[in-house]
Amino acid sequence: MSRFLSRQYENLEPYTPGEQPKSISRLIKLNTNENPYPPCPGVLEVINDEELNKLKLYSDPEASQLVEVIAEFNGLDKSQVMVGNGSDEILAFAFMAFRNEGNKIFYPEISYSFYPVYCDIFNASGVKVPLDKNFKVVPEDYYNADGTIVITNPNAPTGIALTREEIREILQHNKDNLVIIDEAYVDFGGESAVPLIDEYDNLLVIQTFSKSRSLAGARIGMAMGASEIIEDLNRIKFSFNPYNLNRLSILAGTEAIKDRDYFEKTTALIADTRDSFVKEMKMLGFKVLPSKANFVFAASEEISGEEYFKALRNAGIIVRYFKKPLIENFVRITVGTPEEMKELVNETRKIMQAIR
Amino acid sequence: MSRFLSRQYENLEPYTPGEQPKSISRLIKLNTNENPYPPCPGVLEVINDEELNKLKLYSDPEASQLVEVIAEFNGLDKSQVMVGNGSDEILAFAFMAFRNEGNKIFYPEISYSFYPVYCDIFNASGVKVPLDKNFKVVPEDYYNADGTIVITNPNAPTGIALTREEIREILQHNKDNLVIIDEAYVDFGGESAVPLIDEYDNLLVIQTFSKSRSLAGARIGMAMGASEIIEDLNRIKFSFNPYNLNRLSILAGTEAIKDRDYFEKTTALIADTRDSFVKEMKMLGFKVLPSKANFVFAASEEISGEEYFKALRNAGIIVRYFKKPLIENFVRITVGTPEEMKELVNETRKIMQAIR
Repeated sequence: MSRFLSRQYENLEPYTPGEQPKSISRLIKLNTNENPYPPCPGVLEVINDEELNKLKLYSDPEASQLVEVIAEFNGLDKSQVMVGNGSDEILAFAFMAFRNEGNKIFYPEISYSFYPVYCDIFNASGVKVPLDKNFKVVPEDYYNADGTIVITNPNAPTGIALTREEIREILQHNKDNLVIIDEAYVDFGGESAVPLIDEYDNLLVIQTFSKSRSLAGARIGMAMGASEIIEDLNRIKFSFNPYNLNRLSILAGTEAIKDRDYFEKTTALIADTRDSFVKEMKMLGFKVLPSKANFVFAASEEISGEEYFKALRNAGIIVRYFKKPLIENFVRITVGTPEEMKELVNETRKIMQAIR
Repeated sequence: MSRFLSRQYENLEPYTPGEQPKSISRLIKLNTNENPYPPCPGVLEVINDEELNKLKLYSDPEASQLVEVIAEFNGLDKSQVMVGNGSDEILAFAFMAFRNEGNKIFYPEISYSFYPVYCDIFNASGVKVPLDKNFKVVPEDYYNADGTIVITNPNAPTGIALTREEIREILQHNKDNLVIIDEAYVDFGGESAVPLIDEYDNLLVIQTFSKSRSLAGARIGMAMGASEIIEDLNRIKFSFNPYNLNRLSILAGTEAIKDRDYFEKTTALIADTRDSFVKEMKMLGFKVLPSKANFVFAASEEISGEEYFKALRNAGIIVRYFKKPLIENFVRITVGTPEEMKELVNETRKIMQAIR
């Protein structure tokens, strides 16, 4: 820490990203919810030598071509869409833009571990709302909140989803509060709140290209909501980092949205792989929360989350373990290819046999 | 504006980027200080199908390979370097991190027009320090400031540079203040303050890949300074947007640093083109400020800056005009290829003949 750092940040605890090993050639990487399939083929076509030479020119600060295809895909006007350098940047802009008077932010006690960091950095009071005993978000607990609401849906790391009607009720009971629905994982079986945008001017939906679009490395997120909310986010963006998307990510993202067929095939395949994998894990005696995401949250009474995590790591499989109250028996496992999941099941079988 | 926007931002005036025309096929674009030459050839080699397929994976949040080559190029330790999604993002992180007690930020009255926006968004008091009558930054005016200092060197849009010794004196007379030197344009003939980093722990140098590295569209900036200062910036980054650099920009940036030969050749060529162009403009009766950057700031007593800007626009040449006190007679002209500058000189000759 330098002597120039603002006192406000002296105790700021940054977010800890999941491990990104430098070399993954002999590892099965199921720890950061990446897509096991490559980006759609159009990405490889559109990023050609001509476009690489054009890197000498600035990108379009409006990222118009990308905003337009997202709007079209979602049946929205382009004034209802903005894009960011990953959904994390959009979340940061949102936490910054919509700090309200009392400055309270309500979010599930078990959820994306970045929310408390955003509260810290933007000096807001995070209010952690407990889940029920089945790890489900209870919609009624968010009714008539006195602050902004942020809900990941499907939730992470549990994978459990609220229905669109449950989200609607939260919106309906919070007409004067902004409700942010973080839909990073919605495309694997969840119900998006996007169809509610024209009905509720207190709704902001945030999605990402990192999971269902196979573009985690391109850093693209999107925000959708009433045009006034999008205008506010753009006001922050244009006062913070106007050229936030680079040329190649704009191109790649546009292709990923245009190829609806590839998107539907790969997300359906991942959902199928997940459902078969869940059955296998249950047969091995694991408790698996009902996931609508591209990961599952699993625990066994026979082995602690940490031990299971370490045993898998020794076998060359990386999953994610959160050393936190309430969930310390669980590990979060990203859904990879059927082959990767088979390998994980085999290793798990060995691990369980060894301790039985 | 939505009813949820924080009151603090109700009057926030975002930065206005220079025009990025959607189609530039028949335009000569000399308005945003881009490099007229493509990125170094290695960029086209390293971004191949294998890397495009790897876009499914997150980027390295530390951007280690890029940080390492930057450190090596500049004779620094990697703990003294960080990278951002453009130097604008680094400036934003710096304004955020180093808000001091009195919260004053000193910068030249004529300089990068984003500084006042950062002051606004981070609730700091910007103190505009006038230039002298020759548009030069006066180092003594920054001695013993009671706040943070930000100086673009060479300055923009004037192009005039301070020497390293002048920067040293500013550092020496501000031991208790952070001094940020924004060196976006330093590689075209200016003297970098990087060699002073090991001597002064109150120095933060910010550079960009957008000008001398021909990578404006890849959005890469870099910060160099004492490791404690870099640690502070990383604390903000990891609390705001940890994966701020995408995979392809990390690859492209690494190649651009490694190809020292291409970098030296293209920057020298641009400096030569600039010097010849300045002579031509002077022959046409223009006053041209002594530029060490990849642009020149020029004015004529015979035509207003706005009229000249418009006349060039009609001829298919875009330059940048700032409708602002003190500099309203000037236009800022990016140094392009020799052919582009010849075309601009020819058009200027016609414009001047028409009004004489």
